[in-house]
This record gives sequence, C-alpha cells and structure tokens, in this order.
Amino acid sequence: MKRVVVIGGGSAAGAPAAFTAKLFYKDASVTLIKREEKTLVPCGIPYIFGTLKGVDDDVFSNERYKKRGLSLVIDAATKIDRERKVVKTAGGREISYDKLVLATGSSPIKPPIEGSDLKNVFFVEKNYEYIKRFLEALSGKKKAVIIGGGFVGVELGDELRKRGLEVSIVELMPHCLQTAFDDEFCELAESKLKERGIKVFTGCKVESILGDEMSRVRGVKLDSGEVLEADVVVVTVGLKKEVSLATDAGLEVDERYGVVVDEYQRTSDEDIFAVGDCAFKRSFFTNKPSMLMLAPIGSYEARIAGANLFKLRRRNEGVIGTFSTAIGDLALAVSGLTEKAAEAEGIKYVVGSVEIPDKHPPTMPGIKRIRMKLLFDAKTETVIGGQLSGGYVVGEIANIIGTMIRKRMTVDEAATAQVGTHPLLTAPPAFYHIMQAAENARVADQR
Amino acid sequence: MKRVVVIGGGSAAGAPAAFTAKLFYKDASVTLIKREEKTLVPCGIPYIFGTLKGVDDDVFSNERYKKRGLSLVIDAATKIDRERKVVKTAGGREISYDKLVLATGSSPIKPPIEGSDLKNVFFVEKNYEYIKRFLEALSGKKKAVIIGGGFVGVELGDELRKRGLEVSIVELMPHCLQTAFDDEFCELAESKLKERGIKVFTGCKVESILGDEMSRVRGVKLDSGEVLEADVVVVTVGLKKEVSLATDAGLEVDERYGVVVDEYQRTSDEDIFAVGDCAFKRSFFTNKPSMLMLAPIGSYEARIAGANLFKLRRRNEGVIGTFSTAIGDLALAVSGLTEKAAEAEGIKYVVGSVEIPDKHPPTMPGIKRIRMKLLFDAKTETVIGGQLSGGYVVGEIANIIGTMIRKRMTVDEAATAQVGTHPLLTAPPAFYHIMQAAENARVADQR
Repeated sequence: MKRVVVIGGGSAAGAPAAFTAKLFYKDASVTLIKREEKTLVPCGIPYIFGTLKGVDDDVFSNERYKKRGLSLVIDAATKIDRERKVVKTAGGREISYDKLVLATGSSPIKPPIEGSDLKNVFFVEKNYEYIKRFLEALSGKKKAVIIGGGFVGVELGDELRKRGLEVSIVELMPHCLQTAFDDEFCELAESKLKERGIKVFTGCKVESILGDEMSRVRGVKLDSGEVLEADVVVVTVGLKKEVSLATDAGLEVDERYGVVVDEYQRTSDEDIFAVGDCAFKRSFFTNKPSMLMLAPIGSYEARIAGANLFKLRRRNEGVIGTFSTAIGDLALAVSGLTEKAAEAEGIKYVVGSVEIPDKHPPTMPGIKRIRMKLLFDAKTETVIGGQLSGGYVVGEIANIIGTMIRKRMTVDEAATAQVGTHPLLTAPPAFYHIMQAAENARVADQR
Repeated sequence: MKRVVVIGGGSAAGAPAAFTAKLFYKDASVTLIKREEKTLVPCGIPYIFGTLKGVDDDVFSNERYKKRGLSLVIDAATKIDRERKVVKTAGGREISYDKLVLATGSSPIKPPIEGSDLKNVFFVEKNYEYIKRFLEALSGKKKAVIIGGGFVGVELGDELRKRGLEVSIVELMPHCLQTAFDDEFCELAESKLKERGIKVFTGCKVESILGDEMSRVRGVKLDSGEVLEADVVVVTVGLKKEVSLATDAGLEVDERYGVVVDEYQRTSDEDIFAVGDCAFKRSFFTNKPSMLMLAPIGSYEARIAGANLFKLRRRNEGVIGTFSTAIGDLALAVSGLTEKAAEAEGIKYVVGSVEIPDKHPPTMPGIKRIRMKLLFDAKTETVIGGQLSGGYVVGEIANIIGTMIRKRMTVDEAATAQVGTHPLLTAPPAFYHIMQAAENARVADQR
C-alpha cells in the first residue's frame, strides 16, 4: 500500500492536501501529522474576539478525517529522514512515507520592539491554547492598541470594538491595508474604522511598548513621542514562513520565499511536496517570486500537490491573489494587481471604474453601493486586477474577477460578460458592474 | 454627423445599445425611440407587488439619456422605410438613421384560455399604466391564482403572499421552474413556496377561468374538475417576441426564434441590428437556435451591436443563460446546461455536487447552506453547467460559474480555482464550493 504523509496544521493547506490525495489515490494510506488536537481555522481567529462565541467556535473539525478514511496523528514532526523516508516525531513515532507533503504554514513575525515581552502583549498565534489565554486576558480590559494595520489588524480591531474596547490601530505605512489596495479603497476602510469609533494612526512608527511596575503593558509610545494608553496590545505585522523541518532535511529553501517548489509543487526531493504559506510562490503576472500567503492559495496548491503525488496532473500557473475583508457592514475585496503593483512592475494599464447599486431597481430596500475599479493590461487588453467595495456580496464578485484574470479575458469579453442578474440579488443587467467598468476602460487613456 | 437610432423599450437591451453606441462613436447622434415616457424595469415588475412601494419605484430613469448626450423620442415606431433609411412613428415623425438597432423585446403570451377576458384577470405586461391598474385592482382582493410556475409566476406569487393574499400557483409541467432547473432544485423551490403558505399545483392543466354574473373572475377550473377560488388571476406562461416592425420591413424573421441576426447582431439588412428578446439567438453549447430571453443577454447583445455599428469589433459566441431568483430567503441560480438539457442534447457528462456553509467556520452567525451541482462535458472535461441554492450570494456565485463556462475551464482548473475567501463573506478555503464540487466530479462516473 502506498503511504502518503502530510505534515501541517491541518487547515487551509494540510487538510485539502490530505483529502485530495485520498480522492485521487483511493488505495493509499493517508496520514496527517498535526501538532495540536484542536486546530484553529486561521482566518477565523479575529472573529473569536467578537462575532463568535469563543475559541471553541473556531476549531477545524477532526471528524471529517475519520469519515473519509484518513489517519490523524496528533504529534509534532521533528525530523524528516529522507534516506529512510520516515518522519520522526516528538512523541517518538516513526512514520514512513512514499510521498510526503509539507504544509507547515507560517507564524506571526515578532519584531524586536522594546517591551513586547510585557504582560498583556499578544501576537495572533495560530494556536488554540494561546488564543484562549489571549481571549481570557481581555476580561476587564478597556483599551487596546493594535500594532499593524493589515488585514488581521483591521479585522481584530473591528472585533475588539464589538466587545466594547477602545481600539487604536497603529500602522507604519501611509494607509491601513496599504499593500493590498490602492489608496482610495484604503481610505474607505479607514473612514469605516473611524466611523466605528476606532482611532487610526497611519504613517506612525512604534518606538516602544511601555510597562508598569508589575511588568504589565500600559501603553505604546510612538516615535512622535505620543503615548497611546493601553491595557492590552496586539502586534500583527506579518507572517514568517515555517521552514525549519525542510531546512533541516536539506531541502532547497529560499530564505525569504520559503521551500522551493516547481510548478507541480515538488520540492528539490521529488518525493516531497510543499504547499501553502511555507512554499515558494511565483506571481501569475510576472513569474517573479511572490510573498502572498493566503488560505485559498494554500487550498489551491494543496489540490495541485494532492493530485500530483504519484502522477503529474496539475500545474501551478502562479498565484493571482484574491482577498477580501469586512469592517462593520462594509466589505472590501481585491483580485490581482492594484495600480500601485502594476506601476511597480512597469506594466502599462488602463482603468475602468463604476459605482452601482448591488440590487435593482435602485429603490430596492437594503441596497448597498458597489464601487469597482478594473485594470487591464494596455498591451494585451486582458484584465489584470480588480478592487471593489460594497456589501458582503463583493467577496464572491471578486472571485468572478479572479476567474476572468486567470483566463486572461479581454476588455471586450469583460464588457460583454455573460452574467445572470436579479432584482434582489445583483446589480442591474443594463449596467452590471463588471460590464460597465470594462466598457469604461475600453475608452479610457493608458496609465 | 452619423445618425444612430435605437427602437425599443429602453431598458435591458435598448438602453445599453444606445449608451454603447455613444461610447464608441462619440460624434454620432444617438436617438432612442420608445413608446412610453415611463419604462418599467422588466425584471422588477413582480417586486412592485410586495417589496417595492409601488409602480413608480420600478421606473427606468430617463435622466441618464440626457446626461450622456443622447436624444429620447417618446413615440411608437410604426414603420421602417429601409430605402430612405427612415423610421416613421405614430406621432408623424420621420427619423433618419445611418444605423438602426431593433430592441423591440417581447410581450406575454396570451393563451386561448376560456375566461381570460374576465375582469381581474391580468397578464404581466411590461407597461406602466397596465401594471398600475393591476396593482390598484388588488385592493381588497384576498385570493390569487397564478397560472404558470416559471420565474415570473413564482416571484409574483411570493410577492402577492407578502401583501397577505392567499396564493395558488398552477403549473402544467411536473414542477415549477421546470425548464430552468433539475428536479431537486425545483423541489427546493416548491418546498419554500409551500413553507411560505403558497399552494402549488403542478402537473395541472387549466380548463377554464370562471366568472360571476358581473363578469368578474371567481376561480380557475382545473381539468381534474377541481375549482380554485380566486378574486384575481394572473396568467404568466411565457413570452412572445415582438417582431412585427422587422417583419413589415421585410427583414428575415424566424417565426419562432425572432429577427435573424449574424454573430455581429446584424439583421439581413446590414445597416439594421437586432438585440435582446426580439433577436434570434444560438446556444453557446450546441450552436442550435435558443429560446432564452433574459435581460442580461439583452445587455450582452446590446454591447456587441453598439460597438459593431460602424466597425465590427465584437462577436456573439452564443448564449450561455445564467439566471437566478429568490423565494423568501432562499435564492436559486443556474448557469448553462442542466442534466435534463444535456441529456436532451445527447451530451455525456459528469456531475459533482457539494453542500457547504456560505461563511466559515460553520459556527458563524447568519450562515446559510449552499447546495451546488456542477456539470462537466465527459469528453472535453470542460464545465457546461451549474445549479445552486442558498442565500442571496448565490446570484453572483452563478456568475463565477458562467465565466468558467464561457472560458471553457476544465474540471482540473475548476478544482484548483484561484479564489479569495473570508469568514464573513464566503465558504471556507479548504472546501470552497466550486473547488469541491469540481473535485467530486473529477472522480465521478459519466452519466
């Protein structure tokens, strides 16, 4: 019997890798080794703090492994013996494999900020026990400062606000969500944060985290000298790839971009695959290395690797990058390149924008307005990016745009999108957002 | 100056035809001739009866024509003089054109049912004054029977229920929405109708509509002999294409499928284009004539014709057909071929199904479950259809599927969809509906 072993947290990348392996190779034994009994759903972590009832509401079910005939080993993989094709664990196990998938993920960057070891300073660790302690520590707290205004910082800020805390977000760059969106969408996000009573400090560097005589956090000092009072501080400034197992096993690992893989997700050892945050990625647009780390990219790569284990069937075309978030009732989403990113790559482009209700006619109750901006490559006329804001439906609309990007649809194809519309469910047929934004781009000047 | 004239109702097809013409040919004069001052948004008509505040809430704004520099003529076109290139109107106007676009639409079929001329028997006419009278006639009414369980019948039934009427729907075929969905989705729709207190009579033929001594409707007699009491009856059994102007002008017109056009939307007179319900269509899948009449198809064809008027730029690839509806809080959507349709065409296919929450983790408040079925051509392995039910977001998810169909994405591409996910906005990354349904199809047996 062929033996497949997956090492990983067992969520967005590890789980679909294991399931896909079992789907394609029914006769193989598939074993998932994961460190903790209770795996948190990573993107759900901010929601533990407000929308969900607690940490147990964000646990990835282990039931489905048994149901589909997979084996689950709760243990920490400590070493890969490539000669003997064995994974060793902290619990003393030796687990043999014919094919191994690494889905070891990422963990929060811990920048060397003075005072980050104080009591009530937290990172957004993807760890059940840690997050449980973090949640418990919030009891009685009144003022939170979040260092880092990326997706996790913004979402966590919104959730802590839902709990009733006073929240400040400190971001080093000129805007929150700066790397994901162009400025006008960042500004929409910041307006909504402020509308919800969250203080936003952009373009601000943190000098140190201040403590009291009991080594409890009492505030955050900015390099302007200003001190933001806090009885809890969260540091969320990005992710670093977990690659030590791969490095120790002598696999090729890029210091910045992670475990090197080919387009089939094979590492430098062709019996070992890597997927998800830990794995090297290339941009769909430029073929250059990409730092994107997103759950659905993990799932995408997992389904490529899982199918390819014993026969190469699927190829990674490079990552497009589609992501979305919500602040209060405002959702924001992006797929592919922003103007900033296109400019940085020297790609000439045209832009088409539109603002349109998400239902029709515009008198329909519960309408929210969708703002959309599409980018098309000036030379090939194919869609290379889209950004939008509106109600919660924009999360899936971004996936229409992502699909158009992947299939390299032209501006004329996008302007004549074959879509379905309905008064309660979508924008109007005559001015459907994607059609109309593309039509506007069709006659726009190149940037 | 080049003169473009569009004849139409001025909504889903006529309006984008006129706007697209102006966008591509800025120096042209663009005139829209429409019969009524107030054009109803056609797909909004059922919602006039419950969700909207009245008929004036469903009027297509005339403001935007002026804003974009178009001319509007409120008059009925009565004749096209192709020799002189002039449109004559009931008001005695003669309007010259270099290029003419016909967007004359469709109107409700009026089957020869005995009693359909009784008082308080209505059709769903796309006409402001008529619908206003219909709405006024509902005052004090208690029992409505709707003859025809297609989209309009089902939506109108749901809306009349919202007004508090007792509603029965009578459908000749075995199921409501029979031509749009496979049986399991029709059954979901029927269950929801019943849950909302609507009586559903499927597989039932209407023998006659019964009146009282004052020629007011009093009920509907089925061929089983059963009589359904009613003080208002709505007949909505389909649409017929409005082609008389084209026929009178000697253009080639197919008796069933409408004004014959080529792939550029040109009629047999190359200075006259036709778009929307009145125009001949071919199936994207089979290239055979198609009876689909949908607002977004009108918009699609209008944007092809509008761009092609003085230079051929866009081509109609055949219509895919994506549509959606809602009954109470349940939305249903379909894109491309159903199993029934594939079987009828002799297309061998594989099916992948999935049921998954529309947010994640599954403890997230406000979750609705999405049921999805995808069809892939067994030979080419490309996606040819999708059906789904769930919350209102399924309307836009169907547009992801429609885009995949258009670009002939394979089952492996769909299983490795590059999407964005978010706890509040979408299904989970590890089991995203389209990925998972495609993955299930990947290992399914051919049908």
